Amino acid sequence: MERHLDTELNDLKAKILLMRGFVESQLRDTLQALTARDASLAMRVIQNDQAVDKLDIEIDEDSLHLLALYHPTAGDLRFITTVMKIASELERMSDLAGNIAERTIELNDEPQLKPYIDIPAMAQRTIGMVRESLDAFVNRDAELARKVCRDDDFVDDLTEQLFRELLSFMLEDPRTITRSARLTFIGKYYERIADHATNVAELVVYMVEGKIIRHMAVEP
Amino acid sequence: MERHLDTELNDLKAKILLMRGFVESQLRDTLQALTARDASLAMRVIQNDQAVDKLDIEIDEDSLHLLALYHPTAGDLRFITTVMKIASELERMSDLAGNIAERTIELNDEPQLKPYIDIPAMAQRTIGMVRESLDAFVNRDAELARKVCRDDDFVDDLTEQLFRELLSFMLEDPRTITRSARLTFIGKYYERIADHATNVAELVVYMVEGKIIRHMAVEP
Repeated sequence: MERHLDTELNDLKAKILLMRGFVESQLRDTLQALTARDASLAMRVIQNDQAVDKLDIEIDEDSLHLLALYHPTAGDLRFITTVMKIASELERMSDLAGNIAERTIELNDEPQLKPYIDIPAMAQRTIGMVRESLDAFVNRDAELARKVCRDDDFVDDLTEQLFRELLSFMLEDPRTITRSARLTFIGKYYERIADHATNVAELVVYMVEGKIIRHMAVEP
Repeated sequence: MERHLDTELNDLKAKILLMRGFVESQLRDTLQALTARDASLAMRVIQNDQAVDKLDIEIDEDSLHLLALYHPTAGDLRFITTVMKIASELERMSDLAGNIAERTIELNDEPQLKPYIDIPAMAQRTIGMVRESLDAFVNRDAELARKVCRDDDFVDDLTEQLFRELLSFMLEDPRTITRSARLTFIGKYYERIADHATNVAELVVYMVEGKIIRHMAVEP
């Protein structure tokens, strides 16, 4: 019986990694679509959200099934409830990738405002946080998870910097307002994705150490 | 044994309702702080986030404890996992109330842009959605939950309308840009709170009917 549960837990882990793979591709595609002004790639990001939604539902149902069938306790129980929560976080990231793609399509109506520098930096760091938070989960690596939490400050700072820069654009030339506002939203969406990666990292620390670092400042 | 579980499930429900009470007060206070330009009330909203965070952690630990101790199945199992997810949603709403309060404090640096009309309407509807989504949970009322999902469209429309109005302000008078941008963010925060209420409503439909309406368009 126990060995059977182990197999099922591995299947669950594989599904979470598959879901992570989808979300990571979506995030890479958002950045590519934005910088290359590629509306059809942006459309694909929006469509790929369905595959992620489907996996989220599957993982939820599989988890409930395992809880009901095996009555897991201690570590296994915490693993399964963590998986359910991570799936929700990944699903939200996918929705936000869709939001970025929508704003990207709208931005194509006008000439590019300026070469993008802050946004690619934010996107890259965010993608790294998503990947590392899930690596931390798979390897039960609380140290790596704590690093992800610290990286979140970097993304928050960049969002703030981006907002101030775009405000100054708007003030200098009102014709840039609509584009600046859309880029501000895109920055906010990446920031929220980084927040979700941080949530995943906090869940991992809890799963590994039984210690709750949610709602606490993380020491550097 | 079974009766003991019932008592514990009721305690869990009471904690969720307590948490809902805190979040509802926070949301009412955000609106009051914004319209009355009351920075000390806004500060209190930010501080009250701690009580909500604490309840979120407690509910999570209680739920894990019940899962490990009673090995609940079917309806009880779904109830407990739903409670865990609802607690996360409420905790996010509380964070967003804090974000609204932060922008409100910043807005006090400058004169009020105009009488607020759309934002109070959004806030009121959002507060109603939060209350009703939890009423739907307590009364296992899938119909009410579906109504909450439909209300989300109203809030989305108002956010869009607010964004367009604030864009036109910025275009007319660049001196309004900073304030308009902050108000746009506040609108977005209420929209996200309404999204979280919708998530709760979808969880309720799933709990009651075992039917997943997440990731589906809701028919009117």
